[in-house]
Amino acid sequence: MKITLKSPLDMHLHLRDADMLNSIARCSSRYFAGAIIMPNLVPPITSIDDVISYKKRIVKAIEGDFFEPYMTLFFKNDYSYNFLKEAKEHIKAIKLYPSGITTNSEGGVSSFEINDLRDTLEAMSELGLPLLVHGESNGFVMDREKEFGSFYEKIASAFPKLKIVMEHITDKNSVNLLDRYDNLYATITLHHLLITLDDVAGGLLQPHLFCKPIAKRYEDREALRQVALNAHPKVMFGSDSAPHPKHKKESMGCAAGVFSAPVALPALCELFERYSKLDNLQKFISDNAVDIYDLKPIKKEITLEKKEFLVPKKYGDVVPIFAGEKLSWSYA
Amino acid sequence: MKITLKSPLDMHLHLRDADMLNSIARCSSRYFAGAIIMPNLVPPITSIDDVISYKKRIVKAIEGDFFEPYMTLFFKNDYSYNFLKEAKEHIKAIKLYPSGITTNSEGGVSSFEINDLRDTLEAMSELGLPLLVHGESNGFVMDREKEFGSFYEKIASAFPKLKIVMEHITDKNSVNLLDRYDNLYATITLHHLLITLDDVAGGLLQPHLFCKPIAKRYEDREALRQVALNAHPKVMFGSDSAPHPKHKKESMGCAAGVFSAPVALPALCELFERYSKLDNLQKFISDNAVDIYDLKPIKKEITLEKKEFLVPKKYGDVVPIFAGEKLSWSYA
Repeated sequence: MKITLKSPLDMHLHLRDADMLNSIARCSSRYFAGAIIMPNLVPPITSIDDVISYKKRIVKAIEGDFFEPYMTLFFKNDYSYNFLKEAKEHIKAIKLYPSGITTNSEGGVSSFEINDLRDTLEAMSELGLPLLVHGESNGFVMDREKEFGSFYEKIASAFPKLKIVMEHITDKNSVNLLDRYDNLYATITLHHLLITLDDVAGGLLQPHLFCKPIAKRYEDREALRQVALNAHPKVMFGSDSAPHPKHKKESMGCAAGVFSAPVALPALCELFERYSKLDNLQKFISDNAVDIYDLKPIKKEITLEKKEFLVPKKYGDVVPIFAGEKLSWSYA
Repeated sequence: MKITLKSPLDMHLHLRDADMLNSIARCSSRYFAGAIIMPNLVPPITSIDDVISYKKRIVKAIEGDFFEPYMTLFFKNDYSYNFLKEAKEHIKAIKLYPSGITTNSEGGVSSFEINDLRDTLEAMSELGLPLLVHGESNGFVMDREKEFGSFYEKIASAFPKLKIVMEHITDKNSVNLLDRYDNLYATITLHHLLITLDDVAGGLLQPHLFCKPIAKRYEDREALRQVALNAHPKVMFGSDSAPHPKHKKESMGCAAGVFSAPVALPALCELFERYSKLDNLQKFISDNAVDIYDLKPIKKEITLEKKEFLVPKKYGDVVPIFAGEKLSWSYA
C-alpha cells in the first residue's frame, strides 16, 4: 500500500538556530514542501532584518531541498501599520506568546486587554496577516488552555476579520470553539493526536514526550482526533516539532518540546490508516492550510508506503518521538 | 526558635536493599525513632524468613543508630491465619499493592473482589494487623486515587474491625473518606503537602518530584494540608521517601519516587511554622501513629532550630527534594 502526499506542509515548526538549525533543518525540508517557522529565538524575531537573515540561515541549512520557510514575527503590541505593511512582504503570520509560557517566550504578551493589543491587531486584520497564538493561561497546567478560551472568544469577537490560529490545540474546549467563531482556526500536532498525560507520567516519566501545552485527557485526544481524522476544514497539521539536545531533556529540569519532524508523515499515515481515514490525510497535511493561508506551495510529492520503519534513536543529538521503535509506514 | 520532637516516626518508608540500603538507611535512622518499612523489594517480602533477614540487613545498615524498623509483609491473598499469627511476632502491618501500579509492585493484587481477599483480611482483622494500601486504580493518572475510593469504602464496610491505612493520600476525596469510616486512616508525605502537578510539569519537567501517586491539584493539596497541619487524629506522617540513583531519575524513562528522608523534619518545621501550627507537629510526626498502631517507640528526641539549612545536592548517588536549596529550619 502506498500514498502520495502533495506538498505536505507543517504549519507550526521550531527550527531553532546555529548548530541546532544546521543539525535538524533537513529533518523537515526533506519531507515537507514548506513550514510556518516559529520566531521564538533568543532574542526573538521582531524586525524585518531579523526575518530576512533568519530565512537566509534556514535556506543555507536545508542544502538545496525544495522547501519554503514561511517566516513569522514574534508578536509585539507596538508594531505599527506601516511596519507591518512592509513586513508582510517577508512573513506569513505573527505569533503571540503569553510571557513566560514556553521555551523562549519571556518577551511575550503580559496584558491581554483588548485595548493594549488593538492597534496591532487592527493593522494585522486590515493587512490580512493571521495571528497565531500559543493559548495558555498561567493557571494550573491541566487547565491552562481551557482558561485561555475566553481570550480566544474575546479577540475573535473584537476582530472578526482577523484570522486567528489556535496553535497546537490540546483540549476539547478549543475544538468546540472552531465551529463557534468563523475566524478561529487551529493546528494540531502529531503527538497530541497520539498521547495523553498517561503516556507522559502514567508509567515511568517520559521526558521526550513532555511538551507545552501538556498532553491532556483521553476525551481531549478523542476530540482532536475527530477533527483531524475527518479533516475539518479549519484544522491544519502543525508538528510543533521542537528539538532540544538529549542532555536538556534527560536532566534535573527537562525542557518542553517533542521532536517529531522526521517521523511525522509515517506516523500520521499509520494513525489515519488505523481509523480508515487515509483519504483525509491530504487535506489535513496540506489542502486545508493552502485554503486558510491562501498559499501557493512548492509542488513536491512525498510517497509513503506500508513498510516497517525503525525510527533512529537520535537525529544528531536529538531524541525523536518513537526513538528506537517501529512504525508500520515509511518513506518510499 | 527551637522545637524538640519526641520519637519522630516515618510511617511509610522505602529503604531498598544492598548498596542502596547501605547508602541511605542512616538518612532515616539518624533523625527518626522508627519507620514502617515497605516490603516491595525484588522479590517482595512474603515470608517470615524474608522479614527476619531483611530486618537484620537494615539493623546492620543503620550502624547502631537508635531506630526501630517496623517490618511489613507484601500482601498475598493466600496468607493463612496460622501463618499470619506467627508473622505477627515480626511485623506491624501488611502492605497491599495493586499489580503493576508502582515500583516493584508486579506481584501485587489483580482482583479486588472481596471474596478473593476475604480469608486473609478476616485473619488480619482478627489478629489486629493493619492493612496498608497503595490506593490507585489503573485509570487516567490524575483520577487513579479517586477511582480507588470505592474499593476503600468496600473493604472498610466489609471488615469494620480491620484497620486500613490509605497510604500517601493525594486527593481531597481520600481526605473526605477519613471521617466517613471509623477504620480508615491515612499517611501523608512531605512532598504532597508541598507540591502540585504544576511543580512537576508546569514549568520545566522535574523528574526528582515525579512520584506515584502523582501530585494533584491545588484543592487537593489544600485538603491534605487541612488534616496534616491540624493533626487530624487519623492522619500520620509517612514520607514515602523512595531513593533511585540519579541516572534512573534523569533518564528516558524516569522511575517514580521522591527522596525526602534526610530533609523531611526541617521541611515539616518550615511548613508547620508558616501556618502557625508548630504545636501540632508532634502529633502528626509521632503521637497519632503511636495511638493508631499502638506502638511503644524508642525514646529519642530530635531538636530542630530555625537556622538556614543548605540541602546537599546528593546523598550518595541520590538527589533529594530541595537539592541545593535552602530551608529555614535545620537539625540543632
